[in-house]
Amino acid sequence: MKTTRFFVLMLLIISCKTPKEEPSVAKNTTETTPDKQPIGLVIHGGAGTILKKNMTPEKEAAYRAKLEEAAHAGYEILENGGESLDAVIAAIQVMEESPLFNAGKGAVFTHEGKNELDASIMNGKDLNAGAVSGVTKVKSPISLARAIMERSEHVMLSGMGAETFAQEQGLEMVDPEYFYTENRMKALQRAIEREETALDHDGQAAFYDPMIKDSKYGTVGCAALDKNGNLAAGTSTGGMTNKRYNRIGDAPIIGAGTYANNASCAISSTGWGEFFIRGVVAYDIAAKMEYQERSLKAAAREVIQEKLTALGGTGGIIAIDRDGNITTEFNTPGMYRASIDKDGKLDIGIYGE
Amino acid sequence: MKTTRFFVLMLLIISCKTPKEEPSVAKNTTETTPDKQPIGLVIHGGAGTILKKNMTPEKEAAYRAKLEEAAHAGYEILENGGESLDAVIAAIQVMEESPLFNAGKGAVFTHEGKNELDASIMNGKDLNAGAVSGVTKVKSPISLARAIMERSEHVMLSGMGAETFAQEQGLEMVDPEYFYTENRMKALQRAIEREETALDHDGQAAFYDPMIKDSKYGTVGCAALDKNGNLAAGTSTGGMTNKRYNRIGDAPIIGAGTYANNASCAISSTGWGEFFIRGVVAYDIAAKMEYQERSLKAAAREVIQEKLTALGGTGGIIAIDRDGNITTEFNTPGMYRASIDKDGKLDIGIYGE
Repeated sequence: MKTTRFFVLMLLIISCKTPKEEPSVAKNTTETTPDKQPIGLVIHGGAGTILKKNMTPEKEAAYRAKLEEAAHAGYEILENGGESLDAVIAAIQVMEESPLFNAGKGAVFTHEGKNELDASIMNGKDLNAGAVSGVTKVKSPISLARAIMERSEHVMLSGMGAETFAQEQGLEMVDPEYFYTENRMKALQRAIEREETALDHDGQAAFYDPMIKDSKYGTVGCAALDKNGNLAAGTSTGGMTNKRYNRIGDAPIIGAGTYANNASCAISSTGWGEFFIRGVVAYDIAAKMEYQERSLKAAAREVIQEKLTALGGTGGIIAIDRDGNITTEFNTPGMYRASIDKDGKLDIGIYGE
Repeated sequence: MKTTRFFVLMLLIISCKTPKEEPSVAKNTTETTPDKQPIGLVIHGGAGTILKKNMTPEKEAAYRAKLEEAAHAGYEILENGGESLDAVIAAIQVMEESPLFNAGKGAVFTHEGKNELDASIMNGKDLNAGAVSGVTKVKSPISLARAIMERSEHVMLSGMGAETFAQEQGLEMVDPEYFYTENRMKALQRAIEREETALDHDGQAAFYDPMIKDSKYGTVGCAALDKNGNLAAGTSTGGMTNKRYNRIGDAPIIGAGTYANNASCAISSTGWGEFFIRGVVAYDIAAKMEYQERSLKAAAREVIQEKLTALGGTGGIIAIDRDGNITTEFNTPGMYRASIDKDGKLDIGIYGE
């Protein structure tokens, strides 16, 4: 009996001691955190039917190299103490200037054989945002989105009006020919042929043709966290191959294609835009973090794997939260993606895990 | 001592009996509910600096009569067992056809003296949605939004492409002259004069001129619940007086200007659109209901009076939840609004309470 009482006493002492020691460890961490605000960056180059069997080693190497270049371009800015907004622009511009991605230079063709570009950006610090849709002569749509955010009273401009604004702001304009790439033109021709043979006038079938699907989707995006704890996200796209009627997808829609809020996370989406608009996908992930106290990973998984999938939508997101945690989530076979985390670790992915 | 025990016993019996009786009352209510799915409808005709001192009795009477007509047009459909989508269209079309509201016929002028119209609609049953921006020849933009939702693969179309689609679908097209109203042209002239004298090239000052503000804002919208428990919401607008660069506001943005989900509520926004986009206002209210279990009233109040106000935005929303509860919330001096609730009670408001 005495022995038992002794053990109970010892157990009480041990159990009382443990919680006392833990806060002291936690305190140390807290003390060093202000000096060591984590930084991080994650990018995507589009989600879709990306399968290893359809890929040559050369093509895969080209994608990996460009994704790495884009991630480094953004991360370097963060490492040097730069702003997350600048990092987002730098990473996206590397991809806009590459014909590999459906944004900027590599934009897909509309039904009429034009390249209509969309982009958006959001600043997590003040929830300011800029977006543009349907421009045909602006070399870097993401930089126009930023100019709209910072130098206009508006959030979203479109078409010729947006181009007038871009010219007034001295942004680089190019001849629409700049966006011509043979691969994208072939994809358009195939999409039109397929429509004609399938008598599919509203273009539904093209969504289910994997040969076209790859180039129908594909958007580039970036989310970043800088050393001041500011989050930012941006998205840039050429839209869908064979799109008509000046269709606007999710890329320029704040809350669907792009969202950033220092209180939660920064997100960029890619995929079948119509479903991302209906699901308000980017903001929904942030809302789950804020209102349901989900981790970024759990929130992203629920929204993409459960809600988006139930709606019939396909695609994915990349995101980073205010603590520097990075998540990539998609329900397509693959998504071009890369990240450099708070420890400087580079991670590149193309296919599903 | 015995008496005390007797009282305690009596108290116990009473307190045991009360909870037993309550469920039996509740049960009766539950039994009748399935047969009596509530219906309801709420509309707005724009929020802004609407003050009694600036209003003539004639003008006020005209607004009240048109709001009542619009609410009745929608409610009649619901009463006859029709769909919430049809009710939303009917109510909005009454306002689109009136020069009193900044939508359809009464649309304000852009800087270039054009009328560019935007609209969106969402079906709470399947989260399907349709939106259009920047059309100049479509008589009823809300009906085009519905055609996009139901008869295209897309959610959002814009400009000339959207007009081509409208024509293909046989929607009523009008000469752009149809949208000319003298009042709106005067508002544009005043806005331009004001800019010139204030050397305010980006038009910021015009936001703070109450004489212009009235006609800068103003959008019409409707949210409805039908006897099948289906929610729907729609919004239609002429945008902002003196707007430039093909600016797109919140009205055609799903999640910002319009949102409907049978799981929570149906909402239409009106106000300074840029802030509604940045705040993802309409969806945010639904998210608070779903994730934080807020009532519609509490969620709307938090989003409009706290979050939107903190961001610096002005405007309001009208909404109805799946139980037929109706809420109108705004942080402007006034908002044109009307509702008919589940008991058939008509309520019309213009100024703040």
